[in-house]
Amino acid sequence: MNILILGDIYGRPGRKAVKEKLPQLITQYQIDFTIVNGENASGGNGLTTKNAKELLNQPIDVVTMGNHVWQQKEFLETIEDFPQIIRPLNYPEPCPGKGYGIFECRLKNDEIKKIAVVNLSGQIFMPALDNPFNRISPIMDELKNSADLVLIDFHAEATSEKIAFGYFMDGFATAVYGTHTHVQTADERILPLGTAYITDIGMTGPLDGVIGVDREIILETMLTKRPKRFETATGAVQINGIMLEIDEIENKVIRITRLYETIEENKK
Amino acid sequence: MNILILGDIYGRPGRKAVKEKLPQLITQYQIDFTIVNGENASGGNGLTTKNAKELLNQPIDVVTMGNHVWQQKEFLETIEDFPQIIRPLNYPEPCPGKGYGIFECRLKNDEIKKIAVVNLSGQIFMPALDNPFNRISPIMDELKNSADLVLIDFHAEATSEKIAFGYFMDGFATAVYGTHTHVQTADERILPLGTAYITDIGMTGPLDGVIGVDREIILETMLTKRPKRFETATGAVQINGIMLEIDEIENKVIRITRLYETIEENKK
Amino acid sequence: MNILILGDIYGRPGRKAVKEKLPQLITQYQIDFTIVNGENASGGNGLTTKNAKELLNQPIDVVTMGNHVWQQKEFLETIEDFPQIIRPLNYPEPCPGKGYGIFECRLKNDEIKKIAVVNLSGQIFMPALDNPFNRISPIMDELKNSADLVLIDFHAEATSEKIAFGYFMDGFATAVYGTHTHVQTADERILPLGTAYITDIGMTGPLDGVIGVDREIILETMLTKRPKRFETATGAVQINGIMLEIDEIENKVIRITRLYETIEENKK
Amino acid sequence: MNILILGDIYGRPGRKAVKEKLPQLITQYQIDFTIVNGENASGGNGLTTKNAKELLNQPIDVVTMGNHVWQQKEFLETIEDFPQIIRPLNYPEPCPGKGYGIFECRLKNDEIKKIAVVNLSGQIFMPALDNPFNRISPIMDELKNSADLVLIDFHAEATSEKIAFGYFMDGFATAVYGTHTHVQTADERILPLGTAYITDIGMTGPLDGVIGVDREIILETMLTKRPKRFETATGAVQINGIMLEIDEIENKVIRITRLYETIEENKK
Ligand SMILES: [Fe+2]
Ligand SMILES: [Fe+2]
Ligand SMILES: [Fe+2]
Ligand SMILES: [Fe+2]
Ligand SMILES: [Fe+2]
Ligand SMILES: [Fe+2]
Ligand SMILES: [Fe+2]
Ligand SMILES: [Fe+2]
Repeated sequence: MNILILGDIYGRPGRKAVKEKLPQLITQYQIDFTIVNGENASGGNGLTTKNAKELLNQPIDVVTMGNHVWQQKEFLETIEDFPQIIRPLNYPEPCPGKGYGIFECRLKNDEIKKIAVVNLSGQIFMPALDNPFNRISPIMDELKNSADLVLIDFHAEATSEKIAFGYFMDGFATAVYGTHTHVQTADERILPLGTAYITDIGMTGPLDGVIGVDREIILETMLTKRPKRFETATGAVQINGIMLEIDEIENKVIRITRLYETIEENKK
Repeated sequence: MNILILGDIYGRPGRKAVKEKLPQLITQYQIDFTIVNGENASGGNGLTTKNAKELLNQPIDVVTMGNHVWQQKEFLETIEDFPQIIRPLNYPEPCPGKGYGIFECRLKNDEIKKIAVVNLSGQIFMPALDNPFNRISPIMDELKNSADLVLIDFHAEATSEKIAFGYFMDGFATAVYGTHTHVQTADERILPLGTAYITDIGMTGPLDGVIGVDREIILETMLTKRPKRFETATGAVQINGIMLEIDEIENKVIRITRLYETIEENKK
Repeated sequence: MNILILGDIYGRPGRKAVKEKLPQLITQYQIDFTIVNGENASGGNGLTTKNAKELLNQPIDVVTMGNHVWQQKEFLETIEDFPQIIRPLNYPEPCPGKGYGIFECRLKNDEIKKIAVVNLSGQIFMPALDNPFNRISPIMDELKNSADLVLIDFHAEATSEKIAFGYFMDGFATAVYGTHTHVQTADERILPLGTAYITDIGMTGPLDGVIGVDREIILETMLTKRPKRFETATGAVQINGIMLEIDEIENKVIRITRLYETIEENKK
Repeated sequence: MNILILGDIYGRPGRKAVKEKLPQLITQYQIDFTIVNGENASGGNGLTTKNAKELLNQPIDVVTMGNHVWQQKEFLETIEDFPQIIRPLNYPEPCPGKGYGIFECRLKNDEIKKIAVVNLSGQIFMPALDNPFNRISPIMDELKNSADLVLIDFHAEATSEKIAFGYFMDGFATAVYGTHTHVQTADERILPLGTAYITDIGMTGPLDGVIGVDREIILETMLTKRPKRFETATGAVQINGIMLEIDEIENKVIRITRLYETIEENKK
């Protein structure tokens, strides 16, 4: 069984790349279940209802989010229409939407695997949501009892917090993968007790911008320290993510593989 | 011509790995010039005079530093004894030590290449040193006129600042490589105007800790938010870095390659 | 009934000022109950067991703490020996010590008032403890039922978070007073629903330092951005705090008054 | 000679209070020169060209700014039309506008005093502008030679940085006063070498909001950690500031006095 997870879909270029390449990736790698991070899918800022529908019309099973989840004001009201969309679990309660879900995945042999997907936000250099380490503990029993696999999108900035969370879940989760920095890391591995881990799976969006944004704009803000309206970069696109190969008998991850593809700009 | 750069040497395990493996790496990859980041070489916290000498007794040409440079108080007084050690250029003046240096590298054909090595610290999620973008501008002419190659260790946390700096130097520097997060990124490439770039080259130190520190200690601080004295992790070690292949005629980088080796613990 | 609350006792000068002046203040203002913040009482960094005893040998009823509470490692083990010492409630559980306590205060007419004292830490520009707004809610019933008066030391940096917390508690708490910035604010007042409020009650410690520390040391760190060992400032001392006048029939605060005294250095 | 300085004018309520009360304050306290901080004058966010004109139609001599100075995009283009408006000096160069100005003040006896007004932004918990301590040094000679009095609006968050800057300027500046936190502090005094100092002069705007913003909105963001559009609070208004009494012979400050007035809401 193979699971594909794509890093933060950034703006129109990211959505377009998903639309054009996802079916082919699914075929090529015999993918059974697909997750994407959607926190930047609408112009870099959250997810509109329209774009949520657009993503879920692709062969995507679950969309996780991050600190940008509430950037589109309407989404507070529409998120509950989309059970496949998971926002960080550690927003203080009450909060619209769900922080985890258990999804069914029908394998080629018609077996059903139950896959728990959890989204958590880090606290270091991030908004002070509830402590993610302490927030997951009370649901661990439920996850263990209800799901065959547990996949955790740990959306965070600091490498220390991400690695620590990986070890915290080692032996419990099938995989802990980081998102948010928009740069894929090269440290994918199976931790000592069997959990697949990577600090960041990267971004699916413009290759030649600065984490999605037009680079001239960012350079101007760095040089002047004056604010400037962000615009999505144009040109070539990168598709970043990971693939998890799962032992269907043991429900354990056998291999974590990075996916890092670039698509040249279509010069018409 | 080949240049080897190793990421933050962390504590005794990192120093030991350098001592044991660097000669072999230099032979295996026909390395002509070696740089390491030494900001964590002494117990994770800066660099003692003793460890500085120890590092420079290895086949290391230049040691760059970072935000931990002044952690060992004695180093403020001894740094100037080591012209091969470069601290972030953007500390406010006056400041002991140098923020860049121009070093000679004798190639196998006896030709001498002049290599400028610059160290800069980012500002985002970091101490507010002087603006690194504006700090480098006044020395660019000197670097261009005095050196055949310009290598920049951009020591920073935020991916946005690092990528932006890479573009800022694109076409001027031979390479801009990130340090500080202790996790190697998978985004190495040659930027459009010819500068080699990677967001972080990673760490040379304990594999199974949290960016160098014993993982149980870090987990306790994450769960409790109470401080705890850090200790260096033990066990297997990783050697992280990059190699740059240089066209000796054009003085341009042809290839950037990640180095990510792990050394199993010696079970006695 | 009158309550005296002194801001962060800083180092030996702060402790000395308390010892010398507190009895006189208690007499002069007919104080019935005294609280001090003790997070900086030992050299600016937390509270040693010895200094805890020393403070509690003065006519002090309760000592609240803050982000420095665990700076003296021994205190994790000894805090529970001191039921009069309250640390921020919103450290993740389990945590040594208590985040609130209910204390008895015998008035001149021998009536006993039950006074709840709560300590909470803000999250903005501070370590990410649990959300203080959400953390206090589950104990509000208990506080209301067990205590005649509720006093809250909200230890925080950002004025926005402190003012917001004041309004959040307005009508419930007798008083919400800020600590941590070491500078007394001039905004003391009774909020619309009856809670006394001030953004910061200030510091009891050296007058001519920088929030307690020798000013030459701090100036050097500001100019150079290099770390330097902190030392407590010497010279004149300030005693900062507030007094609350309570209507004993209604158990309501009638007046909040700032206390800001300075003691010239004893030139021998 | 008397100087009046008002803290951050916040939104329409702040502008209205200035319009209604400033003439009376000037008469009552025999004010010769008036400065206001205008960084929040337009809906809490920067200053529109229209509101800049409106402020300068009042008896205001100089408007200083802060981190919100570029919030109104148009202001980058219009700031230079207003020589009386001063933005933080330590924005990286080049930057529109000026970081200091020297203004003439005609006294009742027709003598002209030259008053330098400087605006600087702190770095702690603030955007990383250039180091304010190091940025002012190169202009100190010019200020000393060209002006009779030097007034510095140090716009910063951390009390440590503000107090340190006060000491740094002690004996050079006539006054260093803080802005930005929107809460007036009670620590006004003349420093040992003669400079008047206060950590924050407070805000001129809504009394019952949270540093200007509607308190229900802020409370919701604190409880939920979800973003919400800010709106200016309504109701009663506070006028915060300081007055400096100057010895016209010595050009030295004799007294610093806090101004803290509240205006009840006009119930129609
Ligand atoms: Fe993202
Ligand atoms: Fe994010
Ligand atoms: Fe490091
Ligand atoms: Fe570092
Ligand atoms: Fe304190
Ligand atoms: Fe504190
Ligand atoms: Fe302001
Ligand atoms: Fe401000």
